Amino acid sequence: MPIITEPFDLILFGANGDLALRKLMPALYHLDKDGRLNQSGRIIAISRKIPTKAEYLSLIKEQNLKHNEADLYDEKSWQQFSKKIEYICLDLTSSQGFNKLTKKLKDKTRQRIFYCAVHSKLYPDISQNLAQNQLITPVSRIVLEKPIGNDYESGSLINQKVAEFFNESQIFRIDHYLGKETVQNLLALRFANSIFEHQWNQRYIDHIQITISESIGVEKRAGFYEGTGALRDMLQNHLLQLLCMVAMDPPASLDAQAIRDEKVKVLNALKPIEGSEIEKNVVRGQYDSGFIQTTQGAEEVVCYRDELGVPSNSYTDTFVAVKVEIDNWRWSGVPFYLRTGKRLAKRACEIVVHFKEVPHSIFEMQHKNAMANKLVFRLQPDEGVRLQLCEKRIGHRMQVRPMILSLINSEDEEQRVPDAYERLLVDVINDNPALFLRVDELMAAWKWADPILQHWHKQEQKPDAYTSGSWGPAASTLLLAKDGRLWEENH
Amino acid sequence: MPIITEPFDLILFGANGDLALRKLMPALYHLDKDGRLNQSGRIIAISRKIPTKAEYLSLIKEQNLKHNEADLYDEKSWQQFSKKIEYICLDLTSSQGFNKLTKKLKDKTRQRIFYCAVHSKLYPDISQNLAQNQLITPVSRIVLEKPIGNDYESGSLINQKVAEFFNESQIFRIDHYLGKETVQNLLALRFANSIFEHQWNQRYIDHIQITISESIGVEKRAGFYEGTGALRDMLQNHLLQLLCMVAMDPPASLDAQAIRDEKVKVLNALKPIEGSEIEKNVVRGQYDSGFIQTTQGAEEVVCYRDELGVPSNSYTDTFVAVKVEIDNWRWSGVPFYLRTGKRLAKRACEIVVHFKEVPHSIFEMQHKNAMANKLVFRLQPDEGVRLQLCEKRIGHRMQVRPMILSLINSEDEEQRVPDAYERLLVDVINDNPALFLRVDELMAAWKWADPILQHWHKQEQKPDAYTSGSWGPAASTLLLAKDGRLWEENH
Repeated sequence: MPIITEPFDLILFGANGDLALRKLMPALYHLDKDGRLNQSGRIIAISRKIPTKAEYLSLIKEQNLKHNEADLYDEKSWQQFSKKIEYICLDLTSSQGFNKLTKKLKDKTRQRIFYCAVHSKLYPDISQNLAQNQLITPVSRIVLEKPIGNDYESGSLINQKVAEFFNESQIFRIDHYLGKETVQNLLALRFANSIFEHQWNQRYIDHIQITISESIGVEKRAGFYEGTGALRDMLQNHLLQLLCMVAMDPPASLDAQAIRDEKVKVLNALKPIEGSEIEKNVVRGQYDSGFIQTTQGAEEVVCYRDELGVPSNSYTDTFVAVKVEIDNWRWSGVPFYLRTGKRLAKRACEIVVHFKEVPHSIFEMQHKNAMANKLVFRLQPDEGVRLQLCEKRIGHRMQVRPMILSLINSEDEEQRVPDAYERLLVDVINDNPALFLRVDELMAAWKWADPILQHWHKQEQKPDAYTSGSWGPAASTLLLAKDGRLWEENH
Repeated sequence: MPIITEPFDLILFGANGDLALRKLMPALYHLDKDGRLNQSGRIIAISRKIPTKAEYLSLIKEQNLKHNEADLYDEKSWQQFSKKIEYICLDLTSSQGFNKLTKKLKDKTRQRIFYCAVHSKLYPDISQNLAQNQLITPVSRIVLEKPIGNDYESGSLINQKVAEFFNESQIFRIDHYLGKETVQNLLALRFANSIFEHQWNQRYIDHIQITISESIGVEKRAGFYEGTGALRDMLQNHLLQLLCMVAMDPPASLDAQAIRDEKVKVLNALKPIEGSEIEKNVVRGQYDSGFIQTTQGAEEVVCYRDELGVPSNSYTDTFVAVKVEIDNWRWSGVPFYLRTGKRLAKRACEIVVHFKEVPHSIFEMQHKNAMANKLVFRLQPDEGVRLQLCEKRIGHRMQVRPMILSLINSEDEEQRVPDAYERLLVDVINDNPALFLRVDELMAAWKWADPILQHWHKQEQKPDAYTSGSWGPAASTLLLAKDGRLWEENH
């Protein structure tokens, strides 16, 4: 039995933005097609730029659904879905404009979701304008997209402002990586299989790698990206959140509080990287020109500073790699290597858990360096889990060799893996905050990131250049090589 | 690179017996076909019943190779192989007859293998006759098939007699289960994968089951089987040997001594089953009439006492199940359930390692009873290894369900799995005793089995009847049910 939402009004701020068009609307469309949106549900799309509803609907349908989801699109579902959409052209910073919204929102018993798919600096204004127009009901929730703020101070300020109008239980800070099937399966594999969770600690695990690599460059988002960079855009939120899911102690239940209590414990136990530790443990990079592999062959691409809207003396990080340690009983001494970047060799997101090698080997080895057990959680581009074991080669000799097992049940191979936003949107509407960030998690992440950001800011140096299409600067390879390890590169 | 044998003379006593015809000759044929027998190798087949070489060759070729190995048989390979075969008609108990053999065996530098595929009561005579005819060279070895003796005393006597003529290093006690690929892979999976071996003990393993089931009855072997029974024929050797491979501590190397030292430690640590413990922990059965599933449908079969050559008051055990404990640091408190029998529901041989359940479950469970992790080593009818894990069902709910992973690398799916005897024959010729039983192992097994055999002998009772085609007597189910467990029955 699929979970169906309560009756709801979903107010989408930033409805013509990249996120709304590429992710949120397709997710809502699929939910509706699968019968998972309450029939009386309404989506109230709000933007400043598009004048009419007809133009907005056309934008969603023609430029997005039919283009990006062509194989799953059908006209009948679209007709049904588009009836749920209403549209308001509105300037978010003007309180008066919110009248238009007030007129649409009459029924105070319905779940009311304010989804902020806009820059976080607008969150306080939006909250205040909603409050001034008496739009915040007891069953209202606000969804905040990352990054929330630019550092500890600004993040803290935004949270404080929003908290003047919404209770913490009404604030849903979204990190869509947490909605991915594989992240849920990470919990299942860890906490439903004694053979893994019993070994999920420093006695048995050598190190853990988390990579989120993109092959795209900054595209048309330089205005946003210049003031942000890879650390704020990806590391501080997505990578640290994945780290929490891998590293947390078993929660007593799947309740939001139990899970978030465990996650924040991890963030609070992160070893601070400060002073001279920063140069040793953090690598930042900025992409140079190069070649990117596409389905049409290699494509030549420009360096970051030559991208549209990027100043030619930009110090912005388009790549960051970091060696993180967790100072607690479970993980003491186990390095977590995290990296993310644009214009890398491939688009991929993987968590790789490297178990320790056997203490003493009695076999003829084929690949001396690749024999330790390994569990790989793959989130992008496709989702899946792989386990690397060693087996005997058939035949007389006692030769062992690595073998990769795919942990996907054939039963499900035909089933569409729902997008992370589908799950999370239902969770927001139905008031299930387990997979959303609590304020203490967010602030703990900023607290850890701040010294690095401040160091870079003071330093005023260009990040290490790396060739577009590579796996980042040489210093990133060195970060692991110093410890006698290698990044996984067969994504 | 396949391993090729040294130059050899293999003298096969009992060359017209069931084992020689069904197993040894086909194994030698395949080895030769694969180019693994030294070109100068000779097989000297010896039997009392068949008068001429031509008749013997015809027996191998027509009734066995072409019949049982039809898809792998080819005439050219047979021509090449049959040139290696010589034949002598000879009575093993008569020293004079050995003259014929002496004439054939001139070259004392060649590996000389005396393979005794005959009843163990003949081993002393054979050894003595070989010695009297000066046929035992320093590079001679004798291969002894199981069961060696009928109990501790007779087994000990046979070993002593043979030891008058052969050094222990020349005596190869064969147990073909140890030559199976999956048993080798058990070693590889245990000792080349830290995630398994770290948990291979009483802290993490709930219990272990070992089953060798046959669907055939006693067939034409009543003469042998009446004085033997399931405990002597299967449990005391094959099942205990598999138990040793599963339960042994990691050997320091793959040397024969290292492995056999570890195996005998397990046998010596078996908790004795004596006195009142026998009724509690051992179930014996004898098959009744019933129906056996064949490829042609259900076939009605007679009860054991109605089989040709079986007395109508026979007390012979055609089934035995036993709960074994190992009194050592690694296994204390972990029951090993062993069973074997004829006329059971299916032909199968499996070792099933049941890990403990997770200490605390936070998920919606689908099949409450089948969620613990499980590692299954399958030796018969096909070979393979399976791992049962739990995964999340795709979708919004946090439902987990069991998933079976097959630990076989697709790379090898086309490769023929060599028969256990192929491997073991090469090991004998090339003097590698690692997979053969040392005398102390054999005697430790008899020592453990003797009290049970004596108890049954004194008791003079018919074993529990079980329907042919079932999984044995009800008492066998009860043996596990008392402990809140179930036999694996989805072979």
